Amino acid sequence: MIGLAGAGVAGIAATGGALALTSGKNPEPKPVAGIGDAVPFYGARQAGIITPAQDRLHFVAFDVITGKKAELLAMLEAWTAAAARMTAGLDAGTIGAVGGIPEAPPDDTGEAIGLPASGLTLTIGFGPGLFRDAGGKDRFGIADRKPQALADLPHFPGDAIDPRISGGDICIQACAHDPQVAVHAVRNLARIGMGVVSVRWSQLGFGRTSSTSVSQDTPRNLFGFKDGTANLKAEETALLDDHLWVKPGDGPEWMAGGSYLVSRKIRMIVETWDRTSLVEQETIVGRTKGTGAPLTGKAEFDEPDFAAVDGEGEPVIALEAHVRLAHHSQNSGARMLRRGYNYVDGSDGLGRLDAGLFFISYQRDPHRQFVPVQTALARKDVMNEYIRHVSSGLFACPPGLVAADDHWGRALLS
Amino acid sequence: MIGLAGAGVAGIAATGGALALTSGKNPEPKPVAGIGDAVPFYGARQAGIITPAQDRLHFVAFDVITGKKAELLAMLEAWTAAAARMTAGLDAGTIGAVGGIPEAPPDDTGEAIGLPASGLTLTIGFGPGLFRDAGGKDRFGIADRKPQALADLPHFPGDAIDPRISGGDICIQACAHDPQVAVHAVRNLARIGMGVVSVRWSQLGFGRTSSTSVSQDTPRNLFGFKDGTANLKAEETALLDDHLWVKPGDGPEWMAGGSYLVSRKIRMIVETWDRTSLVEQETIVGRTKGTGAPLTGKAEFDEPDFAAVDGEGEPVIALEAHVRLAHHSQNSGARMLRRGYNYVDGSDGLGRLDAGLFFISYQRDPHRQFVPVQTALARKDVMNEYIRHVSSGLFACPPGLVAADDHWGRALLS
Repeated sequence: MIGLAGAGVAGIAATGGALALTSGKNPEPKPVAGIGDAVPFYGARQAGIITPAQDRLHFVAFDVITGKKAELLAMLEAWTAAAARMTAGLDAGTIGAVGGIPEAPPDDTGEAIGLPASGLTLTIGFGPGLFRDAGGKDRFGIADRKPQALADLPHFPGDAIDPRISGGDICIQACAHDPQVAVHAVRNLARIGMGVVSVRWSQLGFGRTSSTSVSQDTPRNLFGFKDGTANLKAEETALLDDHLWVKPGDGPEWMAGGSYLVSRKIRMIVETWDRTSLVEQETIVGRTKGTGAPLTGKAEFDEPDFAAVDGEGEPVIALEAHVRLAHHSQNSGARMLRRGYNYVDGSDGLGRLDAGLFFISYQRDPHRQFVPVQTALARKDVMNEYIRHVSSGLFACPPGLVAADDHWGRALLS
Repeated sequence: MIGLAGAGVAGIAATGGALALTSGKNPEPKPVAGIGDAVPFYGARQAGIITPAQDRLHFVAFDVITGKKAELLAMLEAWTAAAARMTAGLDAGTIGAVGGIPEAPPDDTGEAIGLPASGLTLTIGFGPGLFRDAGGKDRFGIADRKPQALADLPHFPGDAIDPRISGGDICIQACAHDPQVAVHAVRNLARIGMGVVSVRWSQLGFGRTSSTSVSQDTPRNLFGFKDGTANLKAEETALLDDHLWVKPGDGPEWMAGGSYLVSRKIRMIVETWDRTSLVEQETIVGRTKGTGAPLTGKAEFDEPDFAAVDGEGEPVIALEAHVRLAHHSQNSGARMLRRGYNYVDGSDGLGRLDAGLFFISYQRDPHRQFVPVQTALARKDVMNEYIRHVSSGLFACPPGLVAADDHWGRALLS
């Protein structure tokens, strides 16, 4: 074999860091301990959902540009092998026949050589267009396997969705502690998928805005507030069963044990927010900026008291405060696991930073969880003066792969 | 004082991490030891040039939108105070009169509360438009202080420069190990400058592509190759005196001890590169992809032997190889200190990632260093098939501030 390995970079596998593996589809990574370590790829659930949120994100949505099911299946099998390798800290590996031919491109793009696994997770989701394309065609004969939960999200008041950076047939959420590792993974999947998929849109997130484990501190979004205090956490297994994971009777069998992903790119007009007084900011959010405590409490994790009134009989937490409108107690118990990231995409040509929150939530049924909460927020949240939803995505993320010879396409497509 | 400190976040100073300072303009940070630590703000040179390259970048260019010199001076004084605080791991601080008024916005946007200094450096540069605006007007009466070195860069063959993301009157290069800290700093300077400056363009870089110290490993760019092997290093003080720092006789006095910054956003067509064979990639670069050794050597830091020929009498390093065209031995000794970053700005709407290198170089005179090297590259480099220069900037970065009561505007503007 020539390819990359024969040309001076045989050290890739050895420098993977977390693992001594040199090949194979079923790595047995050691438990997560440091930020360089690997997160197991195989398991009953896909990694990257309740995995403690890594620091950096590269999210990509692809259009499927082939109509041939066999090509799509072959790509998903190749992707699975590459994902198993890259999440273990290895190169993308030999894909198809090209690896052994001197004139062929390298098996890996190389920019992550020497970097450890860095907690990389690659989470796949399937969008509505895979089941029926924009023209209504069932390209792959799977329209009858489309979950009801994947029905289009409604238009919400104030939405300014740009279709060019929305939707997609397949998404990959790449999270890692090193952005170079996340970018490398997405790029190599795009490379492997050439001719079968085309990048529709992609988004970098530089800082996590949610914690998904009680072991993590709550980070801050670009409004300067702690975000995700009331998030579902990996340790709350009973809540996860009720709100996060799809149950066998919920819809088609291939999604049992999976979860639905909603992405929303939320531009924040930070310059306007920054001219708003602290008192007003805290009134809008319903929490203090410093500690993140609800305005009725003293510490971040104090439960908000929505019934509390001040000396003049006014609610301490305003009726239109973000924390009230979004809280599960005000939304028939609807909860989500949020996993969003801060972004800055340069500037907007109007003298402002193009910055905001790339919101990601996982839930058992977006139409019973994300939709009612977002409807309440879109109608009433005073924060809407400072934000604009510019991109939207909805994807069905199947359960994890347990068997070493299973792959991302099998349950749905074969 | 009320502002942020009075509203529950008095802990900001205490959580700054690297310093016990609670206020003041002249911090005495401890030496850099870990990635959370502070880099000294005051010194004969601006920090962020030979400082070991931090992992993340937020670069911003501003247009000055006032014609009043006093306003510009006041802003630069306020910026200096805020920069001294933020680089020490503190909040941006009380700026002007607004901090003490309850209805006023907070003194800091808050998203870096609890984060350490993270090696933050803020490096300022002044662009040609500050001396004479687009209409030819000398708004601030400083046209006679414009260095010759700040003359416009020429148009290079193949340039596809977008003026909307080029140029600018003032730049700030924010580098840190935590992107949230770099973004926070730029945003707070923009906030403080409201009404005086307007964000013209900004760029995030997620991964460094150069080392500026012998203590650092050479990182990789998005072509997968090590970048900056032959870079000037902080330890090479004699070379820095010759090639990096402006000498007293070089031009106007206010720039002595400073350096000129060239920025070039270089879009890489990575999808095309990834379809190129390894042999071809290495021929184009003139180095191996694995170790980064020149094709005439065995180890990364072996000097390239441009005279070496193979058995057929052909040069081992091609006449148009990137390493040859860019090498100081082929450019009358011209050297630069490079400090670029990888970027991904989503996708390009054509199925490709919008990715590349945000190139930054510092030099004593861009017209004797950057220009001849880039001219050679633009004319001959085979790599041009895979890249496109889309943004360009040129800024004069004055020397550092030594006195606690000095500020960024004084030497040039008062």
